[in-house]
Amino acid sequence: MTVIEQTETAAFADLKKLFEPRSVAVIGASADGKKISGRPIRFLERAGFTGSVHPVNPKYETIMGLPCRPSVTAIPEPVDLALIFVPGPAVPAAVDDCVAAGVPLAIVFSAGFGETGGAGRAHQEELVARARAGRMRLIGPNSLGAVSARNGLVASFATLFDRDQLPPPGRVGLVSQSGALGAYMYALAQDQGVGFSRFVATGNTADLDLPDVIAYLADDDETDAIGVYLEGLTDGGRLLEALGRAQTAGKPTAILKVGRSEAGQRAAESHTGALAGSDAVFDAALRRSGAVRVPDPQALIDFLLLNTGDQPPMTGGLAVLSASGGAAVWTADRFADFGLELAQLTPDTEARLAEALPAFASPRNPVDATAQMLNDASLFDTCLDAILADPGVGTLVVLSGLQERDGERYAQQIVERARHAAGKRVAVAWLAAPDSVTTLLGRERIPMFGDLARCVNAVAASLIADQRRRAARPAAQAPLLDANKELGSLETEHSAKQFLAHLGLEVPHGTLCDTRDETVAAASALGNRVVLKGQVAGLAHKSDHGLVRVGLEGADEVGAGFDSMRVAMGAAATPGNVRGVLVEELLPEGLDLVVGCVRDPAFGPVTMIGLGGTLVELLHEVEFLVGEVDAEEAYARLGAVRWAALFDGFRGGPAYDRRAAAEAVALLSRLATQQANRISEIEINPLRVLADGRVVALDALVVPASPAVVPSGHEET
Amino acid sequence: MTVIEQTETAAFADLKKLFEPRSVAVIGASADGKKISGRPIRFLERAGFTGSVHPVNPKYETIMGLPCRPSVTAIPEPVDLALIFVPGPAVPAAVDDCVAAGVPLAIVFSAGFGETGGAGRAHQEELVARARAGRMRLIGPNSLGAVSARNGLVASFATLFDRDQLPPPGRVGLVSQSGALGAYMYALAQDQGVGFSRFVATGNTADLDLPDVIAYLADDDETDAIGVYLEGLTDGGRLLEALGRAQTAGKPTAILKVGRSEAGQRAAESHTGALAGSDAVFDAALRRSGAVRVPDPQALIDFLLLNTGDQPPMTGGLAVLSASGGAAVWTADRFADFGLELAQLTPDTEARLAEALPAFASPRNPVDATAQMLNDASLFDTCLDAILADPGVGTLVVLSGLQERDGERYAQQIVERARHAAGKRVAVAWLAAPDSVTTLLGRERIPMFGDLARCVNAVAASLIADQRRRAARPAAQAPLLDANKELGSLETEHSAKQFLAHLGLEVPHGTLCDTRDETVAAASALGNRVVLKGQVAGLAHKSDHGLVRVGLEGADEVGAGFDSMRVAMGAAATPGNVRGVLVEELLPEGLDLVVGCVRDPAFGPVTMIGLGGTLVELLHEVEFLVGEVDAEEAYARLGAVRWAALFDGFRGGPAYDRRAAAEAVALLSRLATQQANRISEIEINPLRVLADGRVVALDALVVPASPAVVPSGHEET
Repeated sequence: MTVIEQTETAAFADLKKLFEPRSVAVIGASADGKKISGRPIRFLERAGFTGSVHPVNPKYETIMGLPCRPSVTAIPEPVDLALIFVPGPAVPAAVDDCVAAGVPLAIVFSAGFGETGGAGRAHQEELVARARAGRMRLIGPNSLGAVSARNGLVASFATLFDRDQLPPPGRVGLVSQSGALGAYMYALAQDQGVGFSRFVATGNTADLDLPDVIAYLADDDETDAIGVYLEGLTDGGRLLEALGRAQTAGKPTAILKVGRSEAGQRAAESHTGALAGSDAVFDAALRRSGAVRVPDPQALIDFLLLNTGDQPPMTGGLAVLSASGGAAVWTADRFADFGLELAQLTPDTEARLAEALPAFASPRNPVDATAQMLNDASLFDTCLDAILADPGVGTLVVLSGLQERDGERYAQQIVERARHAAGKRVAVAWLAAPDSVTTLLGRERIPMFGDLARCVNAVAASLIADQRRRAARPAAQAPLLDANKELGSLETEHSAKQFLAHLGLEVPHGTLCDTRDETVAAASALGNRVVLKGQVAGLAHKSDHGLVRVGLEGADEVGAGFDSMRVAMGAAATPGNVRGVLVEELLPEGLDLVVGCVRDPAFGPVTMIGLGGTLVELLHEVEFLVGEVDAEEAYARLGAVRWAALFDGFRGGPAYDRRAAAEAVALLSRLATQQANRISEIEINPLRVLADGRVVALDALVVPASPAVVPSGHEET
Repeated sequence: MTVIEQTETAAFADLKKLFEPRSVAVIGASADGKKISGRPIRFLERAGFTGSVHPVNPKYETIMGLPCRPSVTAIPEPVDLALIFVPGPAVPAAVDDCVAAGVPLAIVFSAGFGETGGAGRAHQEELVARARAGRMRLIGPNSLGAVSARNGLVASFATLFDRDQLPPPGRVGLVSQSGALGAYMYALAQDQGVGFSRFVATGNTADLDLPDVIAYLADDDETDAIGVYLEGLTDGGRLLEALGRAQTAGKPTAILKVGRSEAGQRAAESHTGALAGSDAVFDAALRRSGAVRVPDPQALIDFLLLNTGDQPPMTGGLAVLSASGGAAVWTADRFADFGLELAQLTPDTEARLAEALPAFASPRNPVDATAQMLNDASLFDTCLDAILADPGVGTLVVLSGLQERDGERYAQQIVERARHAAGKRVAVAWLAAPDSVTTLLGRERIPMFGDLARCVNAVAASLIADQRRRAARPAAQAPLLDANKELGSLETEHSAKQFLAHLGLEVPHGTLCDTRDETVAAASALGNRVVLKGQVAGLAHKSDHGLVRVGLEGADEVGAGFDSMRVAMGAAATPGNVRGVLVEELLPEGLDLVVGCVRDPAFGPVTMIGLGGTLVELLHEVEFLVGEVDAEEAYARLGAVRWAALFDGFRGGPAYDRRAAAEAVALLSRLATQQANRISEIEINPLRVLADGRVVALDALVVPASPAVVPSGHEET
């Protein structure tokens, strides 16, 4: 178990009464079914809600044929869910009324809270405090509501439910931080045949947040797959835990997150209260969660389309069969952009294809069967059969187009071959398809796209999600340190190095010396050339203060070095802070990495790996590891960086042991994560990987946490 | 004018008889209108072709009511265009028949030529030779044909023309190297209301190539915008010239090119005869052409949708008005990915918006008007009017969704406001739109997308194309060298440096010496520390042979250096190749670039700029300049590299003169391009930019062209 899973503060709310309330109160209800606060009453009726509905408004006796009460406390039965529509300033009184009536959960639709900044944010905090004091939980404020399709709960004013056809129930859960975009996606999905089980627009997430909903959906029998739209988050740990629960439950999950560019972040701030964290850290965190990030709203729906229903999961072993060589090339390119390679077909499969195909076609994957594929039903059948029978193929993408006359016959062939390929999946991109093809494939639940890019994006996201769901989660790692044991002093490089060496990270051989004679003797004992480093408590950036001398040799040089360093220390520090001169062996050149552990505002401890030198900093070539990673994962990430070839020996240089480097990185990530309440920052610059396989921390900085700034929910308890 | 424009070999074919033939012969015609060689006769009839049609087949007297001739020579009128459908082996005889009848142009539909490799390629070359000897031009072989919609020329067997509705004529030209994908795109465009003027599927491009078609479309009165689908090209210069002609004619042009990944390239090779060149060079070339690259077939169509009709071009000054804050954020992010910034609205505009909008909305661009925008028609009108009236706004993207009841009213507001904003353009992304909205906006030619990503991609491509069309093409640059003057020896670094210094590139002060005494005297004259470099004719990689000594000082060191270098030269060279020792001043550290001029197989001379050191090579951080660039363009490209911050002084380092570096790069690109017939390669490694503003070639290699390998069409004539 990772530390993120161990946190005790991450318990999730039980949302059963949100989705399956026996009774709903609509507070501030309008008698006009077209008005915002009248719509839910109309929609609940239209959707056939299985519970009771109680309009609340002192101005009316009845609304749309239902008795209307002056207050929630006047309702003659317990209320499971309150929908609060009164204007912002009246919301606290409405909450009090709910609390008095013992309502466990309310959706606050009213706006004018955190999203307006300043005073609105204060009002919002007050509201949450008031609800919590009364043991009531809140969705919103500024929410578009919640939907549970099967029992007809449409607790929303979205005009979506005014469409000619009410969205039919399905098995996908959707949680959206944006109301409008959530409703648009719901409707888009409806148009494309994807039905939802549950939907929540969380609004300002003042109390209940997206992770609460995701965790509920992970456990929900009515939900097969989960879509998330996210604008910003404050507690990444809870998000990861909720996503991990979906992963454990085998539910494919996709996230659309906005707020990457500066312009985007500006708009995000004015739209919600949450500040978008670093996008690279978010991606790194998601990589471990089993969820996949999708680039746009349509891609979210397309992912859900491929991952709902009782189909087997879409798995790797990717093959492409195309009627157009151009489309085959395009598709192979695009999958490669996602890091997905096409499967190598077996020689048998290639031979079967080669025998059937015209001479100028390609029997290799991507299989270009040429336009002949759709002039010859028997050829098409052979291609489908040969590829789907290949043991290395898990997913087949068929690329076609047009076929006004024969399209239905070819579509039928796809359906039949897919039916017989147990456990395998077929997705189709069919450009300018006749309606008969769309209808047939839709009915038989073969995912079909009229757009090559959408098809490839959806298949790629599904395969990546599947890879991530299958990836073994790292096994529990024992604590590096007893939580009760004092860390000891970390005030200098030397003390930080001793601390790290004790945990198993190699540091250069060296001795801390106070006098010239001790220094010369220590240098002599180390043999050959040495490094002198002045140790001053709390002083980083030693080079800037003349406190590093490299490559001194012999008693005279070392002695002179000590003398000059004593002068430099005198200039850089008050006398009480001087801790002596560290004499260390001079190590040979190697591959220099920079490893830094910092605390991300959303995800807590994050380990950053970069290449030594300023150029990589300039090019932003750094890799993030979120939370505690094991050596296996660190090894994989060191293989994924753009400069990974340096480990193999670049341009005739020596090879460096990537696995040894990964072990050092994993140790640091483990330390930073396990000790997040006591250590706020670690930097090893450089961490030198030597040609002989040693990995040595040449310099080290360990910053103890100041207890006041430790956020809750990230550290070990 | 750039050199690319000066080439004399790039004349384009006149395709008037391809698109507007008075008479068409169908050779190898079938009497069955469903068979491939029967379809064109049926399609020409169906489309109301305005010329005459002559089936040719010795087996029939009449086909579909038309007299059928035994040969082309038996046709009683001149034939403008022949469509050759006979099987591959019979094609040469059909070509001979056409030549005998004086046919100027044929489309060869038959397959089995270059696309099959080996023997097929030889047959194809023979075919072209035969046609050219008879003054006939060919489209294909392996072509899907050509279409000219207005005069009903459907010289194709594509089942596209079997659709219930024949594609209506339009004003977009489409040229596709792939037949199937071309037909699919034609049909997709038809479904989305984009009509074509002309269409050609070029097939194997054995004779007439895509540039011929593009150049014709550039001059074509019936064509407003051009779409190109490209799999590989052999003559990039002709492509750029054709695209330049479209740019001059003000015709927006988009290119979809496939074949980037290794898997993709493999498929491309088996599909067409052309090898895909380096993708980065292609992008660099396109940047100068006025055309824009689009990522997928749908994006090509979307670009054409935005750029056809009598609308003004879509120009910069980009604004976004959204009913969803989330969608606004997403859109800003995505535009930023394209390097497109949103316009800063004037304070007046922001004030007007702030007054009208709810407190929690954002009056800044992207304007988040919240869902209130679509609950309040007057607010929506104010937003549209304020943004479109802003003098800094050229293009407005409106983001909306749903509105089953009021959608049409809001759409009508967009139509009216767009109509009054002369010269400005509006594009709409409306998710899950009611049919009434789609119909209304379609009728009024306001581009509308049901997908956010498609909308942003299309607007971004249009704005980038517009930027490129407006970019001034570089002015003519005088020849650096008289074409008749001998280049002189370029056999050593020293001779190459003398050559470059003569053209104005700075090199270190230095002297070529034969003896120890000369060397010591030269070093003394240069003062202080020097560099010694052994000069051996034709020997690159001097360091590997011990022929570089850096930082020698004083007569003893310099003399000893000379001695050891003489030994090293003796080991590395036959005595006849030794040219002496170059003594040079030692220059201070600076910003080291690598500038290399090589010859791209498709685009000819290409100048590559990288940062010195191996890391940049590892990270593929190089920038390409295609053809001859001036200092202005080189300056812009040096500002676009990821390491551009180094010029400004990175992390406290000195600043380096980017303009001076650009001038040196431009000089080299000018030399390589103007002298492409005499110089095949130049490498300056490093080109050192000094803090004092000097830019010095520390090392130089100039490789003369071996006349045999100079391809035609790229060099100056």
